[in-house]
Amino acid sequence: MLKTYAYAAQSAQSDLAPFTFDVRELGDYDVRFEVLFCGVCHSDLHAARNEWGASSYPLVPGHEAVGRVVEVGAKVSRFAVGDHVGVGCLVDSCRTCADCAEGVQQFCSAAVWTYDSKHPKTGETTRGGYASQMVVDEAYALRIPAGLDLAAAAPLLCAGITTWSPLREWGVGPGTKVGVVGLGGLGHMGVKLAAALGAEVTLITTSPGKAADAARLGASRVLISTDKVQMRAASNQFDFILDTVAAQHDLNALLSLLRRDGTLVLLGIPEDNQPSIRATQLTTRRKRLAGSLIGGIAQTQEMLDFCAEKGITADIELIAMPEINTAYARMLKSDVKYRFVIDMATLPRA
Amino acid sequence: MLKTYAYAAQSAQSDLAPFTFDVRELGDYDVRFEVLFCGVCHSDLHAARNEWGASSYPLVPGHEAVGRVVEVGAKVSRFAVGDHVGVGCLVDSCRTCADCAEGVQQFCSAAVWTYDSKHPKTGETTRGGYASQMVVDEAYALRIPAGLDLAAAAPLLCAGITTWSPLREWGVGPGTKVGVVGLGGLGHMGVKLAAALGAEVTLITTSPGKAADAARLGASRVLISTDKVQMRAASNQFDFILDTVAAQHDLNALLSLLRRDGTLVLLGIPEDNQPSIRATQLTTRRKRLAGSLIGGIAQTQEMLDFCAEKGITADIELIAMPEINTAYARMLKSDVKYRFVIDMATLPRA
Repeated sequence: MLKTYAYAAQSAQSDLAPFTFDVRELGDYDVRFEVLFCGVCHSDLHAARNEWGASSYPLVPGHEAVGRVVEVGAKVSRFAVGDHVGVGCLVDSCRTCADCAEGVQQFCSAAVWTYDSKHPKTGETTRGGYASQMVVDEAYALRIPAGLDLAAAAPLLCAGITTWSPLREWGVGPGTKVGVVGLGGLGHMGVKLAAALGAEVTLITTSPGKAADAARLGASRVLISTDKVQMRAASNQFDFILDTVAAQHDLNALLSLLRRDGTLVLLGIPEDNQPSIRATQLTTRRKRLAGSLIGGIAQTQEMLDFCAEKGITADIELIAMPEINTAYARMLKSDVKYRFVIDMATLPRA
Repeated sequence: MLKTYAYAAQSAQSDLAPFTFDVRELGDYDVRFEVLFCGVCHSDLHAARNEWGASSYPLVPGHEAVGRVVEVGAKVSRFAVGDHVGVGCLVDSCRTCADCAEGVQQFCSAAVWTYDSKHPKTGETTRGGYASQMVVDEAYALRIPAGLDLAAAAPLLCAGITTWSPLREWGVGPGTKVGVVGLGGLGHMGVKLAAALGAEVTLITTSPGKAADAARLGASRVLISTDKVQMRAASNQFDFILDTVAAQHDLNALLSLLRRDGTLVLLGIPEDNQPSIRATQLTTRRKRLAGSLIGGIAQTQEMLDFCAEKGITADIELIAMPEINTAYARMLKSDVKYRFVIDMATLPRA
């Protein structure tokens, strides 16, 4: 029951390949679930290749895992065998600090990340959702509401909550003019969620070819950020801009699109992590530059429930586990609409 | 009655010197007042010397003017002869745009600045408070409440509202831990006002010698920003930081002092106007960088009324009008505690 099949990176240079390990024995509050689908986040690739410099190996990625509960601990009250559950980026935190008390466990200094994190309570190195099963404390498991396609719901657990959280924190809704920068895994969820919240959504992109998709996803308009005439005409129009782009790009051009008291929220980190800001952009019309980082457990559940009510999931391309290395190569070329999800039934188990 | 004595710059290179001009004829809604005191803002020097590149000459500076009403137009309802009035940075705006409707006239694209601005309704070039009298529409005049020292109240009209506005917009009050960066004209008002609002205030400065003054002004603590040990120990502590420094300085060091969801507000503009921000500072604990610009008319009146209630004015050094050029030289060396105010009784009138 502990033996777990998975795909792991054995070093920064090696492709992902089959790997087995034992999940922990079930604690009183743990649930064990069979992973059915796992989304592929760009962070998985960064971690597998040690691009952030802190990876340990073997490393099993995956923090958009959806599955079916197969066993519950003695004191588990929120889940039963057969329930559909999900795990996002977090599997535990200290539970006592101000961040935990306010439900923003992602900011807890003792947050335990879903993979490649040392779990202070169990001693294990956490392993992600590219695996046949996972064991997680029920307090960090999400309920996947009935009606959501399980495969297409998987990316909600990272791409969904990462865009949902700032939309909620900054009060986006009817009457808000929202810009979403970039149409990738995060961006396409940002467009869908902002539109479903009642906002008027514009996709801001370098790619004119994305107009049709943007409209289908819920954007009422597309703004081509390389077109200076269009950009100038759009200045001073947006209440809120969600910037999902990690590549180096001009934040001042985006700030110029904001209205007075408008906010630009960074989700991606530009490669050099040192964007330059024209200070007068902020002062002359009292604009704001902010950041956001995934979301807490309760807010993730709120997002899943909202998605079920509105019938929202990610646009995905389902792949087999052995295709993961090809998928990473395609992801690097942005060749995915808009999220790869692994069908874990294809995971070799032998 | 129209003839007005003043001090003006005749070019970017010349010292300020006596100058006469005519104020406009009183319109129905205008008040004419004798200027009794005028504060000296660093912007006056920038404008007089064309350091922002847009000055026209002759230029009469001064946007912290306090005086006594000597004449009112036929339809003036809010002021009477003998009242004490003030004029800050703004003397008119379009009155119909969204900014004006919301009372933030400082963001109106047709805002008429107190000096060196073309007034679209009267055709005149506006002239500031380094003058014997001013004529202003009553809607842009402030009431100076009884009990405030008139000379020491003058700097409230720019330094006061510039620090008050962000404190109010971001909800600073009891329970808020506030940092004020820099102890000059703005900074000393920021410390006083934040403390009077009930916040716990820390002065953040490069000058250990300012500790005693900071305490007297209301700060409970001083943090020396060049001391890396102190700065590290203070990380993650502030809800709100008001940055009054215009010289080039490290915004990332200030951002690191903020708690989750904390806000750093820029009031000064670093010289190159291109501060570099570590994006992960914003994302990892959801921090905010924002700007602010003086304040609207109603908020300026609110601040004056609050100051009267709490007995707050600026710490000033009263100078005679002919001393203005020496005062500018001292201001460049930060040799003023904390605002020069011109006693307009000393203005040569001949």
